[in-house]
Amino acid sequence: MNTYKHEVKYYECDRMGVTHHSNYVRFMEEARVDYLDQLGFGFEKIEAEGVFSPVVSVQCNYKSPTTFKDVIDIQVAIGKVSEMKFEFLYEMRVGNKTVCTAESLHCFIENGRPVAISKRLPELFKAIQSQQ
Amino acid sequence: MNTYKHEVKYYECDRMGVTHHSNYVRFMEEARVDYLDQLGFGFEKIEAEGVFSPVVSVQCNYKSPTTFKDVIDIQVAIGKVSEMKFEFLYEMRVGNKTVCTAESLHCFIENGRPVAISKRLPELFKAIQSQQ
Amino acid sequence: MNTYKHEVKYYECDRMGVTHHSNYVRFMEEARVDYLDQLGFGFEKIEAEGVFSPVVSVQCNYKSPTTFKDVIDIQVAIGKVSEMKFEFLYEMRVGNKTVCTAESLHCFIENGRPVAISKRLPELFKAIQSQQ
Amino acid sequence: MNTYKHEVKYYECDRMGVTHHSNYVRFMEEARVDYLDQLGFGFEKIEAEGVFSPVVSVQCNYKSPTTFKDVIDIQVAIGKVSEMKFEFLYEMRVGNKTVCTAESLHCFIENGRPVAISKRLPELFKAIQSQQ
Repeated sequence: MNTYKHEVKYYECDRMGVTHHSNYVRFMEEARVDYLDQLGFGFEKIEAEGVFSPVVSVQCNYKSPTTFKDVIDIQVAIGKVSEMKFEFLYEMRVGNKTVCTAESLHCFIENGRPVAISKRLPELFKAIQSQQ
Repeated sequence: MNTYKHEVKYYECDRMGVTHHSNYVRFMEEARVDYLDQLGFGFEKIEAEGVFSPVVSVQCNYKSPTTFKDVIDIQVAIGKVSEMKFEFLYEMRVGNKTVCTAESLHCFIENGRPVAISKRLPELFKAIQSQQ
Repeated sequence: MNTYKHEVKYYECDRMGVTHHSNYVRFMEEARVDYLDQLGFGFEKIEAEGVFSPVVSVQCNYKSPTTFKDVIDIQVAIGKVSEMKFEFLYEMRVGNKTVCTAESLHCFIENGRPVAISKRLPELFKAIQSQQ
Repeated sequence: MNTYKHEVKYYECDRMGVTHHSNYVRFMEEARVDYLDQLGFGFEKIEAEGVFSPVVSVQCNYKSPTTFKDVIDIQVAIGKVSEMKFEFLYEMRVGNKTVCTAESLHCFIENGRPVAISKRLPELFKAIQSQQ
């Protein structure tokens, strides 16, 4: 898979002059969307089926600050996968320096209820498993 | 009508140490939501009827910078009103100082098409007119 | 300590109609700022001393979605404290329902280098310890 | 000059399923930064000289909604230029459709006071004039 690149915007930096920490959670989403696109399963296709994928949890470990115009390379990988949940792992670098590592856990819901990915979206489930 | 108060958040300030200019458009929305609530017409009630109110245009004139913890007092007033569109006017102050003046123009749509406010939401139309 | 209240804004909700998950990291910051204010140590006072407090890590566990106009009550508590780092714990509720639990880890830096809180800001250190 | 492209992010869309109107003000900034880069005058270079360029006013005219994954092409042009202020004009398109037109007015300040661009940053002034 190709890494995803995010160039830090002026409005993403705070009073300390660095990227506000909340924005990394948005960069994770951008990279995850791109990853699923590369896998052939765009968010908009999944949502068109009436299935939504809420975030169950996120964890971000800030290693080094970034700032305006830094290009952050985000490597996404699949972590733990079960019938009901799957995990994304993220490594964000600027050049050779790791600036942030992160993980996020996801489920799928339909009509407000959790669904088994392996049954409701079997092809996505296989594709995710194949990346482990 | 009561003014709406927004206390500037840390994450709303930029590298210059001041409130990023894009955030004032969000403060306008907050104040507009509050104004319509005071008038008895919450966004969520209007949307529950299947009617949405997109923004047609916004104009912001930045008079003086604000920063973290400033409490911005926002006075909202109704500007021009027609069958299809209505305008909000905003004056934002910190203490006695005007920090921003702004205006926004709005319409209503249902099933993707513009609707006459006076016909589709006659009570809201009357309430808005009464504030001119 | 008083809990901090955040009313969800229209612009904080996403295509799923719920509060976008990245915003909870911002709510955590709002609640932390308020907590430190109640303790007598505002961010702006600390920054005026040339000391900054970057976020080392955050973890959010999303329990139940929230949406436009929900009032989220955020209870902040102090977790682990050491010479170099301290932790905040958050419980977010809407009415009686826990919607999110979270934690964040912080350090202090001066001129780009980590400083021992107990030495550089001994009164803040004591105040934080007294809340454990 | 090349147009600037912004692909709409999931977190930029609101409850109506469309790009929240406040984000266009951020897209304007992104496009302006890119335009000045192409002209050879990056924000970070100007700020390194101790000069900041606040936004005096913005106006956005929303023509047609955009949504997740739309690629917005932003054409930037220089409007009115004077000793103290200059204007940017923006046309945003998705494919052949104009989705938003906008303008923004800017000045330069140093040590909190407005400066004449022609005197303080004469090369930038010439470059801007040459684009009219």
